[in-house]
Amino acid sequence: MRIALGIEYDGRAFAGWQTQPHGNTVQDALNRALSAIAGSPVSTIAAGRTDAGVHAMQQVVHFDCAVQRPENAWVRGVNSQLPSSVSVLWARVVDPAFHARFSAFSRSYSYFLLAHPVRPALCAGKVGWFHRPLDLGAMRAAAAQLCGRHDFSSFRAAECQAKSPVKDLQQLDLHDFDGLLRFDLRADAFLHHMVRNIVGALVYVGKGALTPDDMAALLAARDRTAAPPTFMPDGLYLTGVGYPADFGLDTRAEPARLSLWRMA
Amino acid sequence: MRIALGIEYDGRAFAGWQTQPHGNTVQDALNRALSAIAGSPVSTIAAGRTDAGVHAMQQVVHFDCAVQRPENAWVRGVNSQLPSSVSVLWARVVDPAFHARFSAFSRSYSYFLLAHPVRPALCAGKVGWFHRPLDLGAMRAAAAQLCGRHDFSSFRAAECQAKSPVKDLQQLDLHDFDGLLRFDLRADAFLHHMVRNIVGALVYVGKGALTPDDMAALLAARDRTAAPPTFMPDGLYLTGVGYPADFGLDTRAEPARLSLWRMA
Repeated sequence: MRIALGIEYDGRAFAGWQTQPHGNTVQDALNRALSAIAGSPVSTIAAGRTDAGVHAMQQVVHFDCAVQRPENAWVRGVNSQLPSSVSVLWARVVDPAFHARFSAFSRSYSYFLLAHPVRPALCAGKVGWFHRPLDLGAMRAAAAQLCGRHDFSSFRAAECQAKSPVKDLQQLDLHDFDGLLRFDLRADAFLHHMVRNIVGALVYVGKGALTPDDMAALLAARDRTAAPPTFMPDGLYLTGVGYPADFGLDTRAEPARLSLWRMA
Repeated sequence: MRIALGIEYDGRAFAGWQTQPHGNTVQDALNRALSAIAGSPVSTIAAGRTDAGVHAMQQVVHFDCAVQRPENAWVRGVNSQLPSSVSVLWARVVDPAFHARFSAFSRSYSYFLLAHPVRPALCAGKVGWFHRPLDLGAMRAAAAQLCGRHDFSSFRAAECQAKSPVKDLQQLDLHDFDGLLRFDLRADAFLHHMVRNIVGALVYVGKGALTPDDMAALLAARDRTAAPPTFMPDGLYLTGVGYPADFGLDTRAEPARLSLWRMA
């Protein structure tokens, strides 16, 4: 039987999603908790392998399991076995054809950035930080240059394992809550560090070191060394994953959970 | 010379405000950082001595110092010496008559409560949690019973050192963001655990274990043992301190900082 889960986690507590020999990753914690409830070893596959320090409001995973458990056992039971920094939001028995990674046709990320002279303390590790005001008009104009289907090699980490650097960036919006910025991005898939590299370049535009036209040139260069540095992971959240409606998954987190993050 | 500071901190990282022999409190961290910048021992006094796990968006402290430093040194310089979980928001040279604790005529706190079946992971330690929906109408009616000048002995911790249990609760509002609740409280001063005890009693009303009229009876009883248990510290934030205008302090945090917490 194949089961899909929606999970939420604080990326600061883990060395990324992907299992490691030291065992301190989200996948390791989740596999251990699921195995305890299943009574046999369980191994999960995720829609997006988030880096160390990157958070998830809605990561989707699947696993196979021979035992029958009520769906609620995969939520409440597993949550009782997980550390406080990760929780299962929902569980659903799915068609065996469902694959958390390969069935996904889109991923959504948001990046929160505090533009303020003083670094965040209350939200340390939960928002990115820039110490000066940013020119949002210029940033929005630059963002518009990136939307659509492009070769994103200029925003791709050297260690990226994707087969192709061509991705379809369907959304790149910038919201401003009195100086707390939120970038919303959606694509079919993202290259390694692509969101953080885009945010880093947009911050360069916002502070006046690049123009919106420079962004078009940067994209056309298809050269990572031409672009500004990768921005810090702190403000990055995986917020949702798109699947064909046939699988019957509602991958949206509930408004109460999103509300503190101004996502509802 | 007397200097006032506004500070922000993540209470999860500290064993409360008040200095302890182990040195792991907000006051200890702040005294160390200020002493490093001043070049001599500095000792601070705060408006409110928050408990372990309680956060501050705007705590106000003062200290005396013989050396002259630009105000910015007390912000940027001190922040460079502080751990990531605490930061100085502003610094101002004040009249020697100013006292962070005794000059304050009001304190404001907010409590965030997630009403959702699944415990918070992304906001673990930053919001309180109740696993079922709550009746906000009943909670608001109960809250109205508490406003005004009363003997709050029923909401006072046994170890409270206040001279009098009579406090003037000027505000107790309840906001609802799609199931994320925010309680806003303002009083001349608060008894030890008073906010958490009030929130605990209001949750009992919200789940139907007490009626709004019971709240009036509870207040009249002036007996801590008659009231529901103290609610968890996780969602509690000191949000502001009121001082006479003569001191020229603007103790409001800037909107960008407050925005993620739905306070702006």
